[in-house]
Amino acid sequence: MDITLVLGLVIVAALGGLAYAAFNYFSVKKLEEGTERMQEIASAIRVGANAFITYEYKIVAIVAVVVAILLALVISWSAAVAFVIGAVMSGSAGWVGMKIATFANVRVTNTARTSKSLSDTLKVAFKGGSVMGLCVSGCALLGIFIVFLVFGRGLGQIEAEFIHEQASSCKSILGMINENLNFGAGFTMTLSGYALGCSVIAIFARIGGGIYTKAADMGADLVGKTEAHIPEDDPRNPATIADNVGDNVGDVAGLGSDLLESYVGALLSGTILAIELFAKHVFGGTDLLEAMIYFPLAFAAAGLISCVIGIASLFVRKKLSDNPHKELNGATYISAILTMLFGAVIAYFSFSQFGGKNVTDDLGNTLSIFESVEFHIGWISPWVAAAIGIIAGIVIGKIAEYYTSYDYKPTKDLASASVEGSALTITQGLSLGMISCMLPCVVLGVAIYGSYLLSGMYGVAAAAIGMLSFVATTVSVDAYGPISDNAGGIAEMSYLEPEVREITDELDAVGNTTAAIGKGFAIGSAALATLSMMTSYIFAYTPAPELANYTEGALDKIALNVIEPAVLVGAIVGAALPFMFSGMLINAVAKAARKMVEEVRRQFKEIKGLLEGEVLPDYKTCIEISSQGALKEMRVPAIFCIAFPVVCGFIFGAEFVGGVLVGATISAIMLALFCGNAGGAWDNGKKYIEVGGVKGEAKGGDAHDAAVVGDTVGDPLKDTVGPSLDILIKIMSTISLVTVAAFAENNLLNLLGL
Amino acid sequence: MDITLVLGLVIVAALGGLAYAAFNYFSVKKLEEGTERMQEIASAIRVGANAFITYEYKIVAIVAVVVAILLALVISWSAAVAFVIGAVMSGSAGWVGMKIATFANVRVTNTARTSKSLSDTLKVAFKGGSVMGLCVSGCALLGIFIVFLVFGRGLGQIEAEFIHEQASSCKSILGMINENLNFGAGFTMTLSGYALGCSVIAIFARIGGGIYTKAADMGADLVGKTEAHIPEDDPRNPATIADNVGDNVGDVAGLGSDLLESYVGALLSGTILAIELFAKHVFGGTDLLEAMIYFPLAFAAAGLISCVIGIASLFVRKKLSDNPHKELNGATYISAILTMLFGAVIAYFSFSQFGGKNVTDDLGNTLSIFESVEFHIGWISPWVAAAIGIIAGIVIGKIAEYYTSYDYKPTKDLASASVEGSALTITQGLSLGMISCMLPCVVLGVAIYGSYLLSGMYGVAAAAIGMLSFVATTVSVDAYGPISDNAGGIAEMSYLEPEVREITDELDAVGNTTAAIGKGFAIGSAALATLSMMTSYIFAYTPAPELANYTEGALDKIALNVIEPAVLVGAIVGAALPFMFSGMLINAVAKAARKMVEEVRRQFKEIKGLLEGEVLPDYKTCIEISSQGALKEMRVPAIFCIAFPVVCGFIFGAEFVGGVLVGATISAIMLALFCGNAGGAWDNGKKYIEVGGVKGEAKGGDAHDAAVVGDTVGDPLKDTVGPSLDILIKIMSTISLVTVAAFAENNLLNLLGL
Repeated sequence: MDITLVLGLVIVAALGGLAYAAFNYFSVKKLEEGTERMQEIASAIRVGANAFITYEYKIVAIVAVVVAILLALVISWSAAVAFVIGAVMSGSAGWVGMKIATFANVRVTNTARTSKSLSDTLKVAFKGGSVMGLCVSGCALLGIFIVFLVFGRGLGQIEAEFIHEQASSCKSILGMINENLNFGAGFTMTLSGYALGCSVIAIFARIGGGIYTKAADMGADLVGKTEAHIPEDDPRNPATIADNVGDNVGDVAGLGSDLLESYVGALLSGTILAIELFAKHVFGGTDLLEAMIYFPLAFAAAGLISCVIGIASLFVRKKLSDNPHKELNGATYISAILTMLFGAVIAYFSFSQFGGKNVTDDLGNTLSIFESVEFHIGWISPWVAAAIGIIAGIVIGKIAEYYTSYDYKPTKDLASASVEGSALTITQGLSLGMISCMLPCVVLGVAIYGSYLLSGMYGVAAAAIGMLSFVATTVSVDAYGPISDNAGGIAEMSYLEPEVREITDELDAVGNTTAAIGKGFAIGSAALATLSMMTSYIFAYTPAPELANYTEGALDKIALNVIEPAVLVGAIVGAALPFMFSGMLINAVAKAARKMVEEVRRQFKEIKGLLEGEVLPDYKTCIEISSQGALKEMRVPAIFCIAFPVVCGFIFGAEFVGGVLVGATISAIMLALFCGNAGGAWDNGKKYIEVGGVKGEAKGGDAHDAAVVGDTVGDPLKDTVGPSLDILIKIMSTISLVTVAAFAENNLLNLLGL
Repeated sequence: MDITLVLGLVIVAALGGLAYAAFNYFSVKKLEEGTERMQEIASAIRVGANAFITYEYKIVAIVAVVVAILLALVISWSAAVAFVIGAVMSGSAGWVGMKIATFANVRVTNTARTSKSLSDTLKVAFKGGSVMGLCVSGCALLGIFIVFLVFGRGLGQIEAEFIHEQASSCKSILGMINENLNFGAGFTMTLSGYALGCSVIAIFARIGGGIYTKAADMGADLVGKTEAHIPEDDPRNPATIADNVGDNVGDVAGLGSDLLESYVGALLSGTILAIELFAKHVFGGTDLLEAMIYFPLAFAAAGLISCVIGIASLFVRKKLSDNPHKELNGATYISAILTMLFGAVIAYFSFSQFGGKNVTDDLGNTLSIFESVEFHIGWISPWVAAAIGIIAGIVIGKIAEYYTSYDYKPTKDLASASVEGSALTITQGLSLGMISCMLPCVVLGVAIYGSYLLSGMYGVAAAAIGMLSFVATTVSVDAYGPISDNAGGIAEMSYLEPEVREITDELDAVGNTTAAIGKGFAIGSAALATLSMMTSYIFAYTPAPELANYTEGALDKIALNVIEPAVLVGAIVGAALPFMFSGMLINAVAKAARKMVEEVRRQFKEIKGLLEGEVLPDYKTCIEISSQGALKEMRVPAIFCIAFPVVCGFIFGAEFVGGVLVGATISAIMLALFCGNAGGAWDNGKKYIEVGGVKGEAKGGDAHDAAVVGDTVGDPLKDTVGPSLDILIKIMSTISLVTVAAFAENNLLNLLGL
């Protein structure tokens, strides 16, 4: 496919997606807000969320400026500019998504109140969520378009010159090769700078949002449910509004920027791999190089267009079924299937001209000797690899559902264990979480190995791209959850009739399941994106082989050998990192939650008539506590994971950092799965008791109390630690890739000659 | 050093150690048992422990026979015989150690009762423990001696022939080389067969013992402390005797066979590495080969002799100080320092003849070109590497103490968190455990890297040998703990005067600290032994390089490349394995504990006058429940971890298994540290509240109740899961090493041509 055509497709998809997002934004916003009380509460949530995100972005802005200056000084000014573009794109997506979520929540409640229709209410909630989803893909692609337009021109130029000079002297070709090599290295840095921009927003949004939402949630639960025995979302609880704000800043904005980062990481790691592989290690091969560089972008564009159709498919129908889960699944499946179909067209036009096994580069070498990029069944190979990614993403989500939904045995058993008290509830939940790590890893393994067999390392990158290509829909479904949750809270706090709460509860219950699926998907996609990024990292620091032997064994030296002591030690320390990071986050949440507990206790004690429902609590102080706690506590872990690989790199060199990345990625995948599934199961185990699933037990009984302990323990695990681990591994591999050129040679160990 | 001299040293040390063990055994056994009631209780514990271990060994015998037959058929009959020798040695050590522990416990109580002297009581307890410690080293070395005597003769023979023929034709040398190569490969299998024998005993002893002890403990706590609110070890609790039996089968026999396995693994991995490195990959170099093969054995013999002196140093003094912890530390430090001194002598006589940097092999090649074995500072290099191991072992133990003792901030903070209820107790403990992973990993990393810089991969093996060389003393100190714990229980159940309990409590408190240190040490040493074993594994399956290029780059191909998809997928699945295994173990404990809870509840309800202390409970049924539960539940996890690498090997090949080993080892190290430290801190946090450390809180209060929940959750983590993970990684690497020759070529993927 022609460069102009691909970039055209990208910008059309990006603008199309954003336009549809804008349309949905305004069509939600123009709906009625409902009673005065509803407006008041919604406004309080909105003001709180806006205040927090404004503060958060101020802190991020400072960090981003520092990072940008460092990038400009140490790496290149183009990397710095790309970094800023990435940060702006990710920041905008999160901001818009959160904004509409705080408009949509009350409108969902009001639709339930006025229409009494599940179908109509679902539409409003999903429309709200779709803005976040479409913005994620749209903004990410728009940014990539700009970066390619501004900095990527060299690719085409060199290509043209290369072909032109092909027949001329060998010396001239060598000159071209050198030029290509230098340009490739520079452009790699620029692209990873863009990814880093997205990462930096994501790390702050996820960690900050995660601490915010769980400090409020735990604070509300620890006093409200456990001590005062008042129900969730009860207006008498001073922390409820903060809890609702938390849903918006954590589960909408945080989630959006998290998946935006995975999306960008997956796309660009494919592109970067192609650049590194060909420009630096194989020399020449520019036709195929071009196809491989642009395939991820075109595929992503096709994915976004599919998602627009998939999302719209839900709104064009007048009346939806009574099963919201089925409807949301429908949108996801339509998006995924269309992505596969359109993706086949993209793959055909990208690769069919290169034939099957006998791919040759511009110097006439048969490419099949390079084991790492072999299109075993022609253009179909990368397409099937991407399709494997799509399917693996869905399966991993389903596994998360199996372990955390109370429709299945694991969570049912967990709920039954609550009868024996809190100790066995915790014990059982821990074991559930631990056991749940295996299946997703097996699926991930099959996806990696299968896609590798099809087209080598590029195939693995293609699988990552496939898994994330329909992210617009998955994020839309995910963001629908907290909006429905908020809607329920507003209904409760506005004293609306029980029927309204029934409708929102039904939506919320589905939201819990979609959240669990979304979490499984998030860690699966983060893992694949990171592994793909890691490969690029190893390519990036391995010196280009001598020209003399470039046709054979050129890729032999590209390795990360675990029994090299630097790598081994890096892997061990790296594996400890996610554990330490998780511990720090749990502490941060506990610290903020403790302040919240004190404040809630104080209000219950000092404000007369509060528990009797005669006066309203002071919501604002609680919002401030959550806000300040999150802003204060997020800095150390966030800066820690940005700085760690770079500092290690300048001291111990590139191989050590390679080991750190491997160790950290592997251990973070396990911890994230463990935290997500244990936390989800504790949450739903509690709900199972509430709906009467455990014989003889009900809300407020001993078993329920034990289950609440499990839920409280699980909350920070599933909503703060797990999601933040996704980002930890992505940002570490991204920043390593950006800075490796600087520390590969200039590090302390090298200086000391060790 | 001469072969005969080394083997002589080994047998002298082994028999000396065992003789001293026998002396201590009988000098403990001849002491008085005390009152009739004390004798009754002690006898009940002894009968229960003997019954369990007899059953356990029956199961192990069946598994061992199956494994031995398979080894004889698939690998070699010598590997099968060595396997049986290993199993017998490990089994005997565990059996003798447990036997004396069940004699020593009541004699410790009686010494406290009759002498009222802390010093005398400490001596009896430590004397009991020293039998286990000395048997571990003594039996292991005795077995190695036998294996070398029977199967290792070829080493010397080839060496002699080799030197004789050195000047003759090249063809003859090639013949020698081939012979050497074949012999080396065979002997590697035999030695790892011996290690596997020790592993198989260890896995059953640790898992079985761990499930037994925690099912009884949790069962006793869940009903006794939490529901009936009666103190620990109260004779009214039907599960107390089972709890005391558990200490003997889990914390004495289980621990002993665990560390015996690490010890053997560390020694033999050094030896095997030398054989693989020289016999197969470097060819020739037989003088140095010999020195490198025998150095680990000689060093271990020196270590055992040091430990005999270190242990005896405590008994030769008439009156000990009032600080048992100081005395035990003294014995440990004397052993460690003497090991370093004697080790220097061993290193000098082993390596000084090879000079410094210009080591040459028998073909006249300069050995310094082989980056992986370079004695940078002559014979001092391997000695310093071993010393680094010794120091690292002690430091890792101290770090575990820091995180789990209530003398330090982490556990104090955890105890304070209990004031906020059980949810925050759990949350804080989880974060403590997670954060505690980093420091030991950094120490491990420094040890690995430092020892590598000194003498390459062989240096890493030397560090592992160093860390484990004084294991006789560390196990003695460890085994002293459960004996004192039992002694306290017997005092309580025999209604002895409070002064007796005061003395045993003081010993027990120290035992808790030494247990935590021991756990840290166990995982640190297991990690080092496994990593060293893993290197041997990679050497073993890498085909020997062509003769033509053996002087240069011969070791280049020895690599485990993480970005190879088979390795990467293996590492991901492998990392999930310890999580799954841990989850299975927790479930097993919970299942057995639940049955115990039911039985205890039944007895409280049905036996009239029991809670009033008028009649005694039915201890025997509880012992049977623990016993049957453990025997039933241990099979699946134990067989699972033996079979997993072999099955993977025959399906996916050697590289995949290499990845599995890396992933599993790294993630198991983290999980084991997490479980050990979180569990230890919860336990001591509870104790801190009991001794009045948290202001305004005491035993029986709300904070204490919350702390008991933490303790109950932590119990299976620290005493079943953590220790079993040590074995998981060791047995996986051992069995992979034994079987790799069989599956390296013959696996499904190879057959399918993928």
